[in-house]
Amino acid sequence: MAKIDFEKGNGLVPVIVQDYRSREVLMVAYMNKQAWEKTKKTGRAQVKDAYIDCDNDTLLLQVRQIGGAACHEGFHSCFFRKRANGNWKVIAKRVFDPKEVYKK
Amino acid sequence: MAKIDFEKGNGLVPVIVQDYRSREVLMVAYMNKQAWEKTKKTGRAQVKDAYIDCDNDTLLLQVRQIGGAACHEGFHSCFFRKRANGNWKVIAKRVFDPKEVYKK
Repeated sequence: MAKIDFEKGNGLVPVIVQDYRSREVLMVAYMNKQAWEKTKKTGRAQVKDAYIDCDNDTLLLQVRQIGGAACHEGFHSCFFRKRANGNWKVIAKRVFDPKEVYKK
Repeated sequence: MAKIDFEKGNGLVPVIVQDYRSREVLMVAYMNKQAWEKTKKTGRAQVKDAYIDCDNDTLLLQVRQIGGAACHEGFHSCFFRKRANGNWKVIAKRVFDPKEVYKK
């Protein structure tokens, strides 16, 4: 049986987080073994499906997004800038204003 | 203007490769600056769109897949195993047999 290879990345594996319906990629995060165990136990409501790649060192989680913004910058997805004419152009609208939400 | 942060990962950034139509995630690769420059110049036919994440250290490439198999194991996507009942279960069919293709 396949086992997630946490050794290769010094205890961490990259995790692609994708909306399970639209298939939009929301973010890439890094998980250790403990976080993975916790996800399996508690993440059932949000995580619809989990996939592992061919060499067992990357995970893909298809999730039900709650709240509408995966990105700390206030966007639906962390990938809110698209390459256009040699520049990275913002192509999404903010769902929330981080200055209002992350107050000291 | 945003610049890709190659320093954080010692010269490499993770790149999510996604089918631009089905939005299926095909693979995660790692790119250095030289590979990125080459992709910009020569990859126009295959790379439909490129996105950068909020902290500039991860790329998302939406591509037109050529050949039908992104994975060296002969599958359409590297994420051909899904979590089911506590195991990773193969949920895709091989497009080619790696033993036939990668001969010495």
